[in-house]
Amino acid sequence: MGNRNLAGTQEQISRRQVLAGAGTLAAGAMLGQGCGMVSPKRAAGGSTEKWPWPYKKLDPEKTAELCYAEWYRVFCGAVISSVFLQLRELVGEPYISFPADGFAYFEGGQMGWGTICGAPAGANLVANLIIGPRIIGKSAAGHQIATEMMEWYSQTELPVYVPKKPKVTAKLPVTVSSSPLCHISVGRWMKEANKPLASPERQDRCARVAASTAYRLIELLNAWKDGSYEADSKFDCINQHGIPGQFNCADCHSSGAPAVTKEEPET
Amino acid sequence: MGNRNLAGTQEQISRRQVLAGAGTLAAGAMLGQGCGMVSPKRAAGGSTEKWPWPYKKLDPEKTAELCYAEWYRVFCGAVISSVFLQLRELVGEPYISFPADGFAYFEGGQMGWGTICGAPAGANLVANLIIGPRIIGKSAAGHQIATEMMEWYSQTELPVYVPKKPKVTAKLPVTVSSSPLCHISVGRWMKEANKPLASPERQDRCARVAASTAYRLIELLNAWKDGSYEADSKFDCINQHGIPGQFNCADCHSSGAPAVTKEEPET
Repeated sequence: MGNRNLAGTQEQISRRQVLAGAGTLAAGAMLGQGCGMVSPKRAAGGSTEKWPWPYKKLDPEKTAELCYAEWYRVFCGAVISSVFLQLRELVGEPYISFPADGFAYFEGGQMGWGTICGAPAGANLVANLIIGPRIIGKSAAGHQIATEMMEWYSQTELPVYVPKKPKVTAKLPVTVSSSPLCHISVGRWMKEANKPLASPERQDRCARVAASTAYRLIELLNAWKDGSYEADSKFDCINQHGIPGQFNCADCHSSGAPAVTKEEPET
Repeated sequence: MGNRNLAGTQEQISRRQVLAGAGTLAAGAMLGQGCGMVSPKRAAGGSTEKWPWPYKKLDPEKTAELCYAEWYRVFCGAVISSVFLQLRELVGEPYISFPADGFAYFEGGQMGWGTICGAPAGANLVANLIIGPRIIGKSAAGHQIATEMMEWYSQTELPVYVPKKPKVTAKLPVTVSSSPLCHISVGRWMKEANKPLASPERQDRCARVAASTAYRLIELLNAWKDGSYEADSKFDCINQHGIPGQFNCADCHSSGAPAVTKEEPET
């Protein structure tokens, strides 16, 4: 996976900031399963709140193809629907009663607000719902796979998957978002491609990004099912400013990030 | 709801940027139900993919109290569980089979990545799943209520709700996040409060933010149930740079936002 601090495409990050981030990565890793405030919790006991959910291995390419097609129906909800529609057929419940279509609101970083891209947002949901949330389920693997998907999405030249019969046949540029946010991911691609938001190329790019994400997600879920998944992310919740976030601060904070109170500076 | 362009707390935004944003608000509003690329879609037909879901009006204060308590169990998944656990009792399905606890991964802006705060993320889910996604359901009200919740969250001095028996009895500072992102919302509060992430005060602040969000969400859902809900948000997906995002660009882009290709600049 290469560079862990997501700083690869930044121009203005300082060596001090990189080192501060690296130091905090180590400190974060010491917190174990993240965020430093959790012991296992009692489940509320709903009929589908028993984890892990039954899972049968899917074909990554078939999932990516379905996801690409589904994007044109439910936009960034396509990562969820491409996985769960197959599992409805192969497994049945609880996938039949899960309202996958409801997540069409993931479009545009949730109703166009440009927050988390619907592709990793969908991957986070799928991994956590199949394997279970780390604070209630039996395993932290859902949390770990979701974290790895966020990292992969931020660091990969996307879209990496080319559908068999693309709606747009021209070769599309690829870009590294350095962020899981829709606003930044789409904006960087639009700037590189010189294409507006409503263009067929931008829409096909997002459909392919969703398909690429579904492909990678299934690789990780299949490894988990095989018992061969090993958590590969160093990301562990607390950045160098002591608040939840990424490690490439200067990507937004080009003139320096504001200071906040770090852990235990006072008695 | 006051200032619509989320620029209230910015220091560096220029008059030109504000005006550009305001102009695009009007242009965005002309796109009607947002994002400019949608006609109604066929539902996949899962057993819970029929909208709207049955809803009975809830008490905002009771929901906020439950949400506050639930935060200490499932963190920012508490907005979802505080609404759906009550509806399991009052209504039954499809709330019984919805895995509300699975959304504990909303913690820290999704596994600590600092993206969308779990409180508005939960409100978006609840509004869209009860009323239905605008591209598949019968109504755009879920999309509109979710958008209004994002705006309310970004513009309100939070936390506004004080629980009856708070775990932290000291008065907590309130801050305006000017963003639905966990990283910014939590960071601004920590700076104002001079408290670290793991402090009881910061945790109680987030529990109260979730409770405040649940309270406001129920007010809007009850109005929708009564037939008196009128969409009140001007936010409509496309900002002045032609990509999904907020209208307060300078909040991150303090030295100017990069240009991307806007709609139809080329033939």
